[in-house]
Amino acid sequence: MENSWEQSVTYSINTIYLLFSAYLVFVMQLGFAMICAGSVRAKNAMNIMLTNVVDAVVGSISFYLFGFAFAYGNSNPFIGTNLFALANIPNENYDYGFFLYQWAFAIAVAGITSGSIAERTQFSAYLVFSFFLTGFVYPIVAHWVWSSSGWLSPNSSDLFLGSGSIDFAGSGVVHLVGAIAGLWGSIIEGPRVGRFDAYGKPVPFRGHNAALVVLGTFLLWFGWFGFNPGSFDKILVAYPDTPDEGNWTSIGRTAVTTTLAGSTAGIVTLFGRRLLIGHWDAMDVCNGLLGGFVAITSGCSVVEPWAAILCGFVSAWVLIGLNILALKLNYDDPLEAAQLHGGCGTWGLLFTGLFAKKKFVNQTYNSGVAVERPYGLLLGGGWGLIGAQVAEILVIFVFVSTTMGPMFYALHKLKLLRIPVHDELAGLDISSHGGYAYAPQEENHPRSYGDYLRMQEDQS
Amino acid sequence: MENSWEQSVTYSINTIYLLFSAYLVFVMQLGFAMICAGSVRAKNAMNIMLTNVVDAVVGSISFYLFGFAFAYGNSNPFIGTNLFALANIPNENYDYGFFLYQWAFAIAVAGITSGSIAERTQFSAYLVFSFFLTGFVYPIVAHWVWSSSGWLSPNSSDLFLGSGSIDFAGSGVVHLVGAIAGLWGSIIEGPRVGRFDAYGKPVPFRGHNAALVVLGTFLLWFGWFGFNPGSFDKILVAYPDTPDEGNWTSIGRTAVTTTLAGSTAGIVTLFGRRLLIGHWDAMDVCNGLLGGFVAITSGCSVVEPWAAILCGFVSAWVLIGLNILALKLNYDDPLEAAQLHGGCGTWGLLFTGLFAKKKFVNQTYNSGVAVERPYGLLLGGGWGLIGAQVAEILVIFVFVSTTMGPMFYALHKLKLLRIPVHDELAGLDISSHGGYAYAPQEENHPRSYGDYLRMQEDQS
Amino acid sequence: MENSWEQSVTYSINTIYLLFSAYLVFVMQLGFAMICAGSVRAKNAMNIMLTNVVDAVVGSISFYLFGFAFAYGNSNPFIGTNLFALANIPNENYDYGFFLYQWAFAIAVAGITSGSIAERTQFSAYLVFSFFLTGFVYPIVAHWVWSSSGWLSPNSSDLFLGSGSIDFAGSGVVHLVGAIAGLWGSIIEGPRVGRFDAYGKPVPFRGHNAALVVLGTFLLWFGWFGFNPGSFDKILVAYPDTPDEGNWTSIGRTAVTTTLAGSTAGIVTLFGRRLLIGHWDAMDVCNGLLGGFVAITSGCSVVEPWAAILCGFVSAWVLIGLNILALKLNYDDPLEAAQLHGGCGTWGLLFTGLFAKKKFVNQTYNSGVAVERPYGLLLGGGWGLIGAQVAEILVIFVFVSTTMGPMFYALHKLKLLRIPVHDELAGLDISSHGGYAYAPQEENHPRSYGDYLRMQEDQS
Repeated sequence: MENSWEQSVTYSINTIYLLFSAYLVFVMQLGFAMICAGSVRAKNAMNIMLTNVVDAVVGSISFYLFGFAFAYGNSNPFIGTNLFALANIPNENYDYGFFLYQWAFAIAVAGITSGSIAERTQFSAYLVFSFFLTGFVYPIVAHWVWSSSGWLSPNSSDLFLGSGSIDFAGSGVVHLVGAIAGLWGSIIEGPRVGRFDAYGKPVPFRGHNAALVVLGTFLLWFGWFGFNPGSFDKILVAYPDTPDEGNWTSIGRTAVTTTLAGSTAGIVTLFGRRLLIGHWDAMDVCNGLLGGFVAITSGCSVVEPWAAILCGFVSAWVLIGLNILALKLNYDDPLEAAQLHGGCGTWGLLFTGLFAKKKFVNQTYNSGVAVERPYGLLLGGGWGLIGAQVAEILVIFVFVSTTMGPMFYALHKLKLLRIPVHDELAGLDISSHGGYAYAPQEENHPRSYGDYLRMQEDQS
Repeated sequence: MENSWEQSVTYSINTIYLLFSAYLVFVMQLGFAMICAGSVRAKNAMNIMLTNVVDAVVGSISFYLFGFAFAYGNSNPFIGTNLFALANIPNENYDYGFFLYQWAFAIAVAGITSGSIAERTQFSAYLVFSFFLTGFVYPIVAHWVWSSSGWLSPNSSDLFLGSGSIDFAGSGVVHLVGAIAGLWGSIIEGPRVGRFDAYGKPVPFRGHNAALVVLGTFLLWFGWFGFNPGSFDKILVAYPDTPDEGNWTSIGRTAVTTTLAGSTAGIVTLFGRRLLIGHWDAMDVCNGLLGGFVAITSGCSVVEPWAAILCGFVSAWVLIGLNILALKLNYDDPLEAAQLHGGCGTWGLLFTGLFAKKKFVNQTYNSGVAVERPYGLLLGGGWGLIGAQVAEILVIFVFVSTTMGPMFYALHKLKLLRIPVHDELAGLDISSHGGYAYAPQEENHPRSYGDYLRMQEDQS
Repeated sequence: MENSWEQSVTYSINTIYLLFSAYLVFVMQLGFAMICAGSVRAKNAMNIMLTNVVDAVVGSISFYLFGFAFAYGNSNPFIGTNLFALANIPNENYDYGFFLYQWAFAIAVAGITSGSIAERTQFSAYLVFSFFLTGFVYPIVAHWVWSSSGWLSPNSSDLFLGSGSIDFAGSGVVHLVGAIAGLWGSIIEGPRVGRFDAYGKPVPFRGHNAALVVLGTFLLWFGWFGFNPGSFDKILVAYPDTPDEGNWTSIGRTAVTTTLAGSTAGIVTLFGRRLLIGHWDAMDVCNGLLGGFVAITSGCSVVEPWAAILCGFVSAWVLIGLNILALKLNYDDPLEAAQLHGGCGTWGLLFTGLFAKKKFVNQTYNSGVAVERPYGLLLGGGWGLIGAQVAEILVIFVFVSTTMGPMFYALHKLKLLRIPVHDELAGLDISSHGGYAYAPQEENHPRSYGDYLRMQEDQS
């Protein structure tokens, strides 16, 4: 059987769309690396960048060998059991491009977790948890929500609560999973030495390079255009009931809701923190922005732009509030990862259950065919969707806690988790990685071009 | 009415093209942030990066609420009055993707201006002018030139001078607007403390990090591939009179003219400055490159590659000359933004009036249908186009001066514009943002891995 | 003759694919600049970044004027002799987009070479070799292998050894060419002052900024998605014998093999070096990753994913081994460029000759039509392909050695190659470029916000 020209055009267009989206998602790995590096002290910069690179390379292998199979093998509602090592790819459902797109998501999860346990964790512990999280824990959650055979999937033939949960690009599947893993890791390790004084008062630990943080934040924004709009997978899908509309319309709208939610959260965090601490903090606006992106990630495809602004507004206060709470509880998360990805991710799932619009739910999940299914509670869509959203939050919390929690605890008991205190004080870079990330300008050099010319004269 | 398959394919292809171009244009915001950060002194790095992030987030909201409406609402030749907050989007003319593309342009304008007033401006003044410029001044100029109902538009039904001005991607609408705003801001504020000595001689203020400048320059180059070729909006437009040609051909050519103009300007600036100052300066080649891009932005789609080389050659000397003039006049613009974006932008508009090729004008503005309309004066196209180009320069100068000038002056009179002199000396980061962008390596740490091992031994 | 709609769609899809791939390849220039900058000492950072920018701008002009003509003019098997200055472009074979894609490749070559001769070369020597390499040496090799009239081309009508060499994206044409040029440059210049002590023992010269190296590595990875999958040039090409498959399938698979080879090489290098030197080195995993990418670049489109893992595994040991050898021989290559691009590039060409799969060779080079032609030796494909691969390695070695070797030697004899020793000690930035890349925080500034507030009080 030959390909028809129409088929070839459809494949080509959708492949271009998915692959370039995958490349953008991959940029987020770089964004994480830069934010993490800039947010830690100079003595640990090499360590955290190494962990980000290792996420990507270890994740590539574990996701290729079995992670993708656990996630998208389609045998039962709980875990996939075929497609190991890309066996039988390409097939009628999945092409290589789809694998690459999912790979870029998978490697992002461990990056979130590594932020929570930064500046005090043994590198070998990192290798273990990263392999386990990317190859096993994350793929199973992805299977539940994103595989068409998953029990929580909004595309399943047997919809949970008649709805399935709507976590379009993964406020829960990606961000909440990474955050809860990090939460347990950070709790089990305890705070960095000196982070809280004898009275439990926090001692400021400034990141060493704000330029890297801003660089990373913008790169994450750029990558999020692949993460959210890209999650449609296919762009050439027309909606029969609405002339001129198709996935291309929804994709554009998703890029807009993403932008508005992040921007609003950034502004509100900036002004909110200005009121609290008395100055304009660039690191705050960066974190606020990211919190808004995390929150909108679940509902980006099914809400109106005005709702996205509301989503961002609330997520700023979620982040501000959780950060205050974390300090009160002496919880130390160098990247605020649990607060940001966990708190705003949870809010994002709830927000979708409240504000998902009927028309957009049908466009996103039924190719524009109008069917009766639950949508946002506050828009009159009933309790089915919000129920499924709450279910997703709970099962993620329980599943990640019961898998990653014991794993971190076992590493802790085996003394494989935290580095010795004198190595922490000296810094991970010198103790584990052979040297610092930065080599200073040598001394006894000319200070200026004038100096240099004078030195030349002296020699002649 | 159902979508035909042909329609769906057309929408999908054009949406992919426009959205990914928008993402590239967005990268320019990051490029600006890095160039600005690297070009100022370390004590002001946090401040200027914050302003770049704030441009993006504040611009998102103001452009969504009314900027887009002022620019692309289609009621009259002077200002748009519908489409506020994306009401009635998508419609037969505009989809969400178009909004996103225009948004990425809008947030770039304030970034240019912020360069001119860097290292001495109050953050709250910045918030005010950025909101006003992105939401009001820039959109109105965009309406005149780019909206089909604009009085200067080359697509209007009533062409100004029979031609309309050709400012394809915005040498005038974006760069000149941002530059003139910055020019007034910088003049009203005056030079940074110590920039000129008692005799009016300039004191060199070196940027603190050339790596950030090079990073930003390359990112801007990358983004310009979205800015210039992307301004076609649609790629699937065939030219009936020329077999095998369509917007896809013009788009490729536009990427080539952009590359050649920038490259030529970079080389010429490098050698020109080598003659003037006696060494090879990496910052010069970066600025020269950007000057070439700014200049070609107006005519990129309507000139031959050889003309682009000429465009770059002249823009290098425009930049070099204006920089000399600025020093003579004790005009202090930390990013050379008024010289670069204003000078080369003006040259670019004139260049287009001189060298626009008949065939390419018809391809770009009449989908390849041969009609009689003015084109480049030196190619025999008459005075209509160059006249319209001069008109655009003049109206931009007058309009931006009469809106942004008084605004900066009012802020100045209200003592809301410039920071106190002791804060300027201490730096904006410590006085307004709670701390520096960089935290140095702590002292008393092992200097090398050998040191570290010796310390370990001492403790045991 | 009018364009048919089918033609226009095909052109549009393929142009989008090729142009955005070109933009990604362009990002590699930025990646190189950042890796190079981070890997040298702070006193030479400005110099090496300038050379990277100059590569791009000088290469644009020389490749436009004659490089593209030498490479893709189609008159004879050894060198092209038409298409100078894009004359007769667009034509039925080549559009502007194709030129831009090839331009992005051409400017990468000199970047590789500049790594080998970093920290000791006169800037004017750099201008000369860069112009010669990008405009003449590289294009001729590209003509042999990639132009359909080239004598080594796998698309030629008269296949060398019945096969032609398969160097899909240029392990040989790009990486080996750049590496051999650098090898001769570095040998002729000799090691940097102080790199080996009086007994020939290496003295560690740490790069000054690991964050730039990690940034550059990720950017190169991002760019490689344009380099390897992009080399298909067209995505809308169906394979008649395999339903649902076409270039879109092969393109996805190419992105996957690229990712797996790089990732494997990164991991293996990390663990291998851990065994050798006793700590986890982030710079090693970065270089290992790049070595894997270089190796897979030749065969990325014609091998199975499992073979890509093997490719990466071996390339890690090639890199580790050659680095040990280089130290033994007192060969000093600040970026390990000859070892990495030369060693892994050579291995990549051989690997392709061993593991190229029959089906994929037919898909890539015969649009999926099954013909009898040699493929991987170890898969039963005979000696034709591996013979052509060895031939490519040999002719590249001989041709680049006999052109670039004498050129560097002549510069050396004319005392135009290496900078004076006191300038090398002072650093290139202060001696040739007017100042350092970094300006430190000024002294006598408040150390903290508390300090700042106290200073304010003292003044009032």
